[in-house]
Amino acid sequence: MTDTQNTRADGRSTDQLRSIRITRGFTTNPAGSVLVEFGDTRVMCTASIELGVPRFKKDSGEGWLTAEYAMLPAATHERNRRESMSGKVKGRTHEISRLIGRSLRAAVDLTQLGENTINIDCDVLQADGGTRTAAITGAYVALADAVAVLQEAGVVPGNPLLPPVAAVSVGIVDGVPMLDLPYEEDVRAEVDMNVVMTESGRFVEIQGTGEEGDFGREELGALLDLAEKGIRELHQVQKTALEAVLP
Amino acid sequence: MTDTQNTRADGRSTDQLRSIRITRGFTTNPAGSVLVEFGDTRVMCTASIELGVPRFKKDSGEGWLTAEYAMLPAATHERNRRESMSGKVKGRTHEISRLIGRSLRAAVDLTQLGENTINIDCDVLQADGGTRTAAITGAYVALADAVAVLQEAGVVPGNPLLPPVAAVSVGIVDGVPMLDLPYEEDVRAEVDMNVVMTESGRFVEIQGTGEEGDFGREELGALLDLAEKGIRELHQVQKTALEAVLP
Amino acid sequence: MTDTQNTRADGRSTDQLRSIRITRGFTTNPAGSVLVEFGDTRVMCTASIELGVPRFKKDSGEGWLTAEYAMLPAATHERNRRESMSGKVKGRTHEISRLIGRSLRAAVDLTQLGENTINIDCDVLQADGGTRTAAITGAYVALADAVAVLQEAGVVPGNPLLPPVAAVSVGIVDGVPMLDLPYEEDVRAEVDMNVVMTESGRFVEIQGTGEEGDFGREELGALLDLAEKGIRELHQVQKTALEAVLP
Amino acid sequence: MTDTQNTRADGRSTDQLRSIRITRGFTTNPAGSVLVEFGDTRVMCTASIELGVPRFKKDSGEGWLTAEYAMLPAATHERNRRESMSGKVKGRTHEISRLIGRSLRAAVDLTQLGENTINIDCDVLQADGGTRTAAITGAYVALADAVAVLQEAGVVPGNPLLPPVAAVSVGIVDGVPMLDLPYEEDVRAEVDMNVVMTESGRFVEIQGTGEEGDFGREELGALLDLAEKGIRELHQVQKTALEAVLP
Amino acid sequence: MTDTQNTRADGRSTDQLRSIRITRGFTTNPAGSVLVEFGDTRVMCTASIELGVPRFKKDSGEGWLTAEYAMLPAATHERNRRESMSGKVKGRTHEISRLIGRSLRAAVDLTQLGENTINIDCDVLQADGGTRTAAITGAYVALADAVAVLQEAGVVPGNPLLPPVAAVSVGIVDGVPMLDLPYEEDVRAEVDMNVVMTESGRFVEIQGTGEEGDFGREELGALLDLAEKGIRELHQVQKTALEAVLP
Amino acid sequence: MTDTQNTRADGRSTDQLRSIRITRGFTTNPAGSVLVEFGDTRVMCTASIELGVPRFKKDSGEGWLTAEYAMLPAATHERNRRESMSGKVKGRTHEISRLIGRSLRAAVDLTQLGENTINIDCDVLQADGGTRTAAITGAYVALADAVAVLQEAGVVPGNPLLPPVAAVSVGIVDGVPMLDLPYEEDVRAEVDMNVVMTESGRFVEIQGTGEEGDFGREELGALLDLAEKGIRELHQVQKTALEAVLP
Repeated sequence: MTDTQNTRADGRSTDQLRSIRITRGFTTNPAGSVLVEFGDTRVMCTASIELGVPRFKKDSGEGWLTAEYAMLPAATHERNRRESMSGKVKGRTHEISRLIGRSLRAAVDLTQLGENTINIDCDVLQADGGTRTAAITGAYVALADAVAVLQEAGVVPGNPLLPPVAAVSVGIVDGVPMLDLPYEEDVRAEVDMNVVMTESGRFVEIQGTGEEGDFGREELGALLDLAEKGIRELHQVQKTALEAVLP
Repeated sequence: MTDTQNTRADGRSTDQLRSIRITRGFTTNPAGSVLVEFGDTRVMCTASIELGVPRFKKDSGEGWLTAEYAMLPAATHERNRRESMSGKVKGRTHEISRLIGRSLRAAVDLTQLGENTINIDCDVLQADGGTRTAAITGAYVALADAVAVLQEAGVVPGNPLLPPVAAVSVGIVDGVPMLDLPYEEDVRAEVDMNVVMTESGRFVEIQGTGEEGDFGREELGALLDLAEKGIRELHQVQKTALEAVLP
Repeated sequence: MTDTQNTRADGRSTDQLRSIRITRGFTTNPAGSVLVEFGDTRVMCTASIELGVPRFKKDSGEGWLTAEYAMLPAATHERNRRESMSGKVKGRTHEISRLIGRSLRAAVDLTQLGENTINIDCDVLQADGGTRTAAITGAYVALADAVAVLQEAGVVPGNPLLPPVAAVSVGIVDGVPMLDLPYEEDVRAEVDMNVVMTESGRFVEIQGTGEEGDFGREELGALLDLAEKGIRELHQVQKTALEAVLP
Repeated sequence: MTDTQNTRADGRSTDQLRSIRITRGFTTNPAGSVLVEFGDTRVMCTASIELGVPRFKKDSGEGWLTAEYAMLPAATHERNRRESMSGKVKGRTHEISRLIGRSLRAAVDLTQLGENTINIDCDVLQADGGTRTAAITGAYVALADAVAVLQEAGVVPGNPLLPPVAAVSVGIVDGVPMLDLPYEEDVRAEVDMNVVMTESGRFVEIQGTGEEGDFGREELGALLDLAEKGIRELHQVQKTALEAVLP
Repeated sequence: MTDTQNTRADGRSTDQLRSIRITRGFTTNPAGSVLVEFGDTRVMCTASIELGVPRFKKDSGEGWLTAEYAMLPAATHERNRRESMSGKVKGRTHEISRLIGRSLRAAVDLTQLGENTINIDCDVLQADGGTRTAAITGAYVALADAVAVLQEAGVVPGNPLLPPVAAVSVGIVDGVPMLDLPYEEDVRAEVDMNVVMTESGRFVEIQGTGEEGDFGREELGALLDLAEKGIRELHQVQKTALEAVLP
Repeated sequence: MTDTQNTRADGRSTDQLRSIRITRGFTTNPAGSVLVEFGDTRVMCTASIELGVPRFKKDSGEGWLTAEYAMLPAATHERNRRESMSGKVKGRTHEISRLIGRSLRAAVDLTQLGENTINIDCDVLQADGGTRTAAITGAYVALADAVAVLQEAGVVPGNPLLPPVAAVSVGIVDGVPMLDLPYEEDVRAEVDMNVVMTESGRFVEIQGTGEEGDFGREELGALLDLAEKGIRELHQVQKTALEAVLP
């Protein structure tokens, strides 16, 4: 794979993450607030606590976690129309919100949360590919901060937080499996896959699509190898961020 | 796996599909119209031809294919609210519509379609799990009939239809990997996966979720084996259906 | 009228219904589920039971019945846009839903229903004229099956079901009054009328429109004669269907 | 019928209209603007001219007429929610708008209108039963004024206006057929019918509903007799109003 | 300013109001109903009483007042699209509704109202500039009548009505400050200001905009002088109207 | 005023701005992107260029500028519901978007812009009072950067940018006029005013509201003095920011 390492426009090797940064305490009103950066992709992830649960969870003794993802109008290369103004939430937005919700529910023990709800909001300030995987990775850290607030307030006796969940995109571009695609690679990818994984190396979610080309078991294996390598590094960044003292 | 073969409520072995039926010419107005049944799941799949393409495809010389999925209000055990009346299309509906669209675009060569659009509609008459995979499997047959209409009309000179694409759900229920889950198994599944595959055995889409539990590489392998077995059988049903003379 | 008998494209005499079929138990989840066919017009009619009543009926001791009508996108000759996706329910849809609701409320004694609601859904699978009258005719049978479920469950002590209500369209085409218009006649009709009638031959609803031409008392009389003849036959079909044992 | 003449709360005989007033030039911006009063029911009817026609009439050489009906929030006894704010146009509103449109199209020769559109707006300022029939009756006068504007401007060479169309409600209240029901009678009526008629005494539309009771041929005849008597008087009021010089 | 007095198309001097008329009891269903006219601008203002308060005022012991403004489609020179039909309430509509609500809340002592809500509706029948200020001025009179109804019914023991609040528009047109702008002046104005004032000559709201040109302190002073003069006259008209006996 | 200087919770004197920061190049996709901070209020302001103008400006030879304001869900103390998900844009949001648009149009010569549109987006990341005035102040800087991009690209020959426009809130809290209110003062304010001003000290917009109390000419004067002092300082910050070299 030595040759192909030079094919990436940003000079990265095929199995290399972009520069990752997680800034805790990015804003102060929500219980958890994180700015996560995967290269030029920047997502503000917040975790807000709400007393009570939705109707379908009432009197279950359990909590709930839900997520909403959105793109600021000027986040993309060409401004995209504001969904509140068009009156239509795009299918893509719904799809990603649901993915983030499922992924983060794998990182919290709802039975330990009491009848409280955690609202995750992931708002993309700047988009350069991989916004949903950056969102999941950052939202875990915001979730951890929100859970800490609940614990400090004595609302939850135990620890509802489970070990880190992180996510990364992988794909096949010009026939080569690559890790953490920026926009420029993403639009050219024959196969595009988002992988969400726990710290123990098990899958929470795999979504692989071959709109411009199908893929076999072998390619699937290569992509999952890349994803696993990247996610292990992301878990490390999450833990380092959480070890720091909140400013 | 001999023991677990008896764990299924409907008496199937873990690697066995439900009874599959594909009825072509189910209605007569659209170019292709199919009723597909996976056990008690029944979906009406139609393919309608529209001259012209959406704006983003104008003057590309290529065609387009798009899909919409919906659930009739009385399709489910408890009546679900009609989305047109509530004024909100659910995230789940958008997500499935997009999946069907991507899957079927893998079954048609858009460059051979001329600037025409094929609208796939998948309306669930009765839901018992696996509605999205039944929809994809049935929609391929409706698509084939619609393409034949285009060819007969001399609108497309070549053959835009690619080899069959079919889909099936697999999941881990009570720790056991199983093929083609009905509703009763689906709600209990720890891991739930939808697999879309071409006739050459390559993946078009993999969507695996472990909301009630994560999964490792080995379990992924077992699930993909089951899916591959099921989809090969589905391809056979599709081909048999298409070989018959349309009533 | 001997001459005019040959004017209909499908060979029917002017006072003849199309071939009528009512299939009970079409799907299994709702309490009542019927496929009704008036020639090529095919409507799935379901009756679902919901405990409780809308706010304006609370504590009245009475039940309620409401209806929703919709057209599947591919039901018509040219695909029509899905109302949930356009975000607008058409005036025509509202108008027909309200007509079906009023008509079926004439077939049920709400005071005998307890505080329960019956939701009628009429989804047109294939449209060839007369979809609203087919819907009313089929929905009565679905309603009868739903009421039977309530009775078997011991929820209602008496019998809330009233004698059959059925409906048919009549119109003046090329100056000739005709019964049960298919689409081809409907678009050419100078006068178009929908009649809903009880078994005792009394009107529940008359809606006559002369958009392409007005009409006098005499023509009204001729149209009502045709409608009455047709509806008496429809009542017979309803009763025969209900006498059969549900599969 | 001598006895029943005393049954009406407002002292009218059963075949008597309420006091009818038509005020032309009620506002000055639209081409035609009329305030119509049927007793305490007051509707502002306007006819606005718009160059061009909707897409489905393009290049037909013909014009179009469309109508919208609405109720001001404080028009009713209890304030009703503003439809623009609730985001939902009620089925009843759609149904009445469509009825008004069909009725007024029977009063204009679209082939003589050129490719112009007339927008009828009927806004109920005060509701006391019969708002839709008052609207149709008043809108004809607004339409006549708008057509005169088109003629004066030389836009249409001939005369697109057809003879008067008017409408009235009739119903059976406490077993007695009555003409022009106010709200208090309307809510008690067993049978409720709206009749739209041309000057030559022919029907444009009949909509009869027996939600609280069905009706036979004889009662239908009695109701149509009452309607015909009332509408002949309304045509006279329309013509008198139109003979006056616009202020 | 003698010269400029002749610059107004309608012959008014720059500090002169248009002809103002307030008609109480314009309709009879709402507790207060007023037609207010500022020249050709005509607005129907109603005040409807609703038992109970919105959630955020529950158990506060106080009442609430809210307002909705709308323009009838044919009120303007060119027909404007009905907001209920377009499904979008314009920003301008929201902005004015909020202004009216704030202004009228300055005319009622909510603590004396009990937990009741007053709904103000201002529907513009004919627009010729200054619709929002006419609406506020007329709505105060409707409010006064509604409060009287509450008092007569013994619902409120004291007097929640505060002294009159009225409003007028002022602006700079062709460099000249002017009072009460009709549409023709409004569209040409360099500076446009709406002023809401109590009887004691204090401001409730000032909204000044210089979209076509900015303005300094001196011009602000001149505009406020004009506004104050006009509003004092409007208060007089309000009081005279309220002294009359309601028909 | 020495005494009152100590009444502010954050230790500021009554005529002192919060700490103001303007960060240019906050994101890289839009032509202009600024983070503006007024104390804890943080707003991301972007200016995106779009070729062409809205319909009402077509063939005018002029450009257009429009603005949209929104609050991220977690920007406030309590999470506020996402407008795209609720399907309703609040009146407050519309009102502020319109204010920003009018204010910024006073800072650009549309006749020098060619037929291009500048879209201003102001998204509040963190809200602590004064979000609309911070948005206007920051958006001017983003606008300046966007205009520079147009000039560099040779799209506009002259300089469409006008001198700085900035805005600040002032209010009367506990009887004392104060500059630049944070949320805690804003909710307690008897009078609340937003002032937009050009560099030459002239008003673009004044919006003063006394919902909890009215105000006289004298207090208006005091508030405008405070606003003018603050805005002069804001103009200085804008100019300093623009003099720096973009990173």
